[in-house]
Amino acid sequence: MNRDFLYNQIANGIASQITGGLLKAGDKLPSVRMLCREYRISMNTAKRVFLELEAQSLIDSKPQSGYFVSMGSHLKLPLPDVSRPSAVAKGMEPDELISKVYANMGNDGFTLFSIAVPSTDLLPLAKLRKEIMNATRELNGGGAAYEPVQGNVKLRRMIAIRSLAWGGNLHENDLITTTGAMNALSFCLMALGKPGDTIAMESPCYPGTLQLAITLGFKVLELPTHPISGLELNALKEAIPKINLCLLVPNFNTPLGSCMPDENKKEIVALLSKHNIPLIEDDIYGDLYFGAQRPKCCKSFDKDGSVLWCSSVSKTLAPGYRVGWVAPGKYKDRLLKLKLVHSISSSSIAQEAVASFLNSGKYESHLRQLRRTLQDNYQHYVNAIARYFPEGTKTSRPQGGLSLWVEFSNGTDVAKLYDLAIKQHISIAPGRMFTLQNQFENCMRLCFGLPWSVQIEAKLKQLGSLAKVV
Amino acid sequence: MNRDFLYNQIANGIASQITGGLLKAGDKLPSVRMLCREYRISMNTAKRVFLELEAQSLIDSKPQSGYFVSMGSHLKLPLPDVSRPSAVAKGMEPDELISKVYANMGNDGFTLFSIAVPSTDLLPLAKLRKEIMNATRELNGGGAAYEPVQGNVKLRRMIAIRSLAWGGNLHENDLITTTGAMNALSFCLMALGKPGDTIAMESPCYPGTLQLAITLGFKVLELPTHPISGLELNALKEAIPKINLCLLVPNFNTPLGSCMPDENKKEIVALLSKHNIPLIEDDIYGDLYFGAQRPKCCKSFDKDGSVLWCSSVSKTLAPGYRVGWVAPGKYKDRLLKLKLVHSISSSSIAQEAVASFLNSGKYESHLRQLRRTLQDNYQHYVNAIARYFPEGTKTSRPQGGLSLWVEFSNGTDVAKLYDLAIKQHISIAPGRMFTLQNQFENCMRLCFGLPWSVQIEAKLKQLGSLAKVV
Repeated sequence: MNRDFLYNQIANGIASQITGGLLKAGDKLPSVRMLCREYRISMNTAKRVFLELEAQSLIDSKPQSGYFVSMGSHLKLPLPDVSRPSAVAKGMEPDELISKVYANMGNDGFTLFSIAVPSTDLLPLAKLRKEIMNATRELNGGGAAYEPVQGNVKLRRMIAIRSLAWGGNLHENDLITTTGAMNALSFCLMALGKPGDTIAMESPCYPGTLQLAITLGFKVLELPTHPISGLELNALKEAIPKINLCLLVPNFNTPLGSCMPDENKKEIVALLSKHNIPLIEDDIYGDLYFGAQRPKCCKSFDKDGSVLWCSSVSKTLAPGYRVGWVAPGKYKDRLLKLKLVHSISSSSIAQEAVASFLNSGKYESHLRQLRRTLQDNYQHYVNAIARYFPEGTKTSRPQGGLSLWVEFSNGTDVAKLYDLAIKQHISIAPGRMFTLQNQFENCMRLCFGLPWSVQIEAKLKQLGSLAKVV
Repeated sequence: MNRDFLYNQIANGIASQITGGLLKAGDKLPSVRMLCREYRISMNTAKRVFLELEAQSLIDSKPQSGYFVSMGSHLKLPLPDVSRPSAVAKGMEPDELISKVYANMGNDGFTLFSIAVPSTDLLPLAKLRKEIMNATRELNGGGAAYEPVQGNVKLRRMIAIRSLAWGGNLHENDLITTTGAMNALSFCLMALGKPGDTIAMESPCYPGTLQLAITLGFKVLELPTHPISGLELNALKEAIPKINLCLLVPNFNTPLGSCMPDENKKEIVALLSKHNIPLIEDDIYGDLYFGAQRPKCCKSFDKDGSVLWCSSVSKTLAPGYRVGWVAPGKYKDRLLKLKLVHSISSSSIAQEAVASFLNSGKYESHLRQLRRTLQDNYQHYVNAIARYFPEGTKTSRPQGGLSLWVEFSNGTDVAKLYDLAIKQHISIAPGRMFTLQNQFENCMRLCFGLPWSVQIEAKLKQLGSLAKVV
């Protein structure tokens, strides 16, 4: 029996004992050794079972004592199933839905649960303002002169240094700056593929990358994805003969918030490299981990430069600055040429400001605070869902990032829920936006970048009431 | 006989009498009426002959007295011929040459005659710095928040107002901001064409647009272009059945600096619209006119939204800000979608700063000063060429913009001249960069964005000496 399947099955069994109430908060779980004997599995597999349950916040480990059912887990909602998209690339764009949702984006009076971005209340605006002023003094020509195509060298140096924390070991020369991560992804797709090519992605998946792929004439193969551990390895293995490219968000992808275990990352990189398939890795949420440690990236396991690692400060610091970057491995020359040809260079001042903010050490303390707030938000949001949403509602259990995935019972029409909610000035992102197939009609993405407050709770309560009547 | 050909022929005849010394500085020319009789042409054609000679600075008009040979014209160098590129689309990229030239771009110790950008000494840096600081106060979230996809509304409003001066009559809703004009051109090409399509351009032409077209898989049809009046109408008419798209720089295009007469613009717009061929108009140099009035654009004559007018502040105010825009006519929805998909939105702060600089009225006085300086530079540069360059050197006569086209006698290998010059820390742009065909090997673009000084004169003298030995 497949190893992946096995540990998932055991973990799910224990999880359902917890969520079903058979195991109560505070109950002690069997030891790793006992689990090995009971299920005839290896120590490693047993450890992965507990790691998975811990990642799901269902259990806590206590030093020298073992694992216990988490005290908060009685509030936990059931987990959505692994997605099962069609094994054939499809291109049914949810155009109308996307236009509707984006049209309300800049609308001040609305509560936007729909966009995966931290509220400006959570950003260090005063400090950033100072960095902008410094940048106009530091830069050649106050930022009015063209900078080198590759981008601000101070910024690239800071990103390279930060990459040591997740095993990226990048050098400033490995990086190219871009107008946000979306622009980095766009250059990667243009550099590596051509119309008619098939690109593999997670499912559900960020609508922007789906749209980008479709706009460039690619076919998108959506792959089954686990709400906790991300892309299913087997599905990718089976897809290999069909795909030319792969674009993944291994860390806290939106909408699920899943995080791919390190060994999966390693295996995927080796697999794709063996078949000469470039991997575009979108790591914009990587710094927003709720756990003790920043997760690694696929790039951490890249041996031959076939991983193109993309990120930005749009989810952590300043979306409006449009400061992103890519470490394109062996495709650097192609990317540089594309950047030159499509935009010559990046806007200078915002890059310099971010570089100097990173250099000051303020970024780390800001991130610590932001992660704490987001994790708190998430707990509050999930509790509100448990309290106010219809029975049977399932949610993903993000281990970081800005969004969670809500699955209503079958038959709930979330497109209709959107229409009802928007009348009450609440914006959500219907599940159908996150796929090019007819699936997820009973799902939605709920972002928790808005700070918790009685108003937010009231809005979630309103949303829950609406969900009960659609 | 074709009307275009006729007035050009007559003008060139008189021009060569002047440059050849047959007509001396201060000599009176025949009147319009006499010219009509002599050549059996209409009053309009005769007037165009004088306008053309005036545009070439060969003659001056004196009120109530008629036309006289210009006092400075004894220094005038002969004009290069109308270009005669192949009538078949070609794609021989001057890759190596371009890499070489760009590699030296950020090099501080070099005299860069190769890049078409005003020196930062000519930019209002202190004022811009203040605008940047104001922008961080004015903007929502200090510029850290995403702005609407279409771009900063204040900036769009200011561009719309300025468009009244050249008959654009745009509304803020007609405009989309971009990361510089190059990014606007990139979106236009992606929105309107597909790999295999043929796009018509002037020849010689900016290497960036040639590269962009090739990168996107287009075939480029380079069209004969007159150094004074720009694209040859007849050539475009003949090309109509072969082309899907047209990209022109009607005002002071680089490298020639030609300016298309209004009636040509009008005729081209009508012709292309009749054949349903979109016209992408790059107007980045439009505000840098040496004459009394800002020239119109093709967009001024656009009746059905088939002209996509692109521009930026990169040639006039702040290249490093990457603030550009496009008025895409009836293709607005397509462009908006492309911008969203490829970069979400633009960097906020630089746009707001430019908007407020434009709004303050400071832009107009800055432009007046800049135009004066550039025209002075141009005169100095041309005089230096006449003095120091090999006999037989021809130059274009830019009526605005930042660059002039230098044609050495046949057999002069400018790629070799580049290698010699770069050793002396002088960078030029070899003519072969401005085409995808094997032509212009004896030409170069010389930009006059560097303020005149004894050092610049010495560098031009050095360059002239080198040109005499290659």
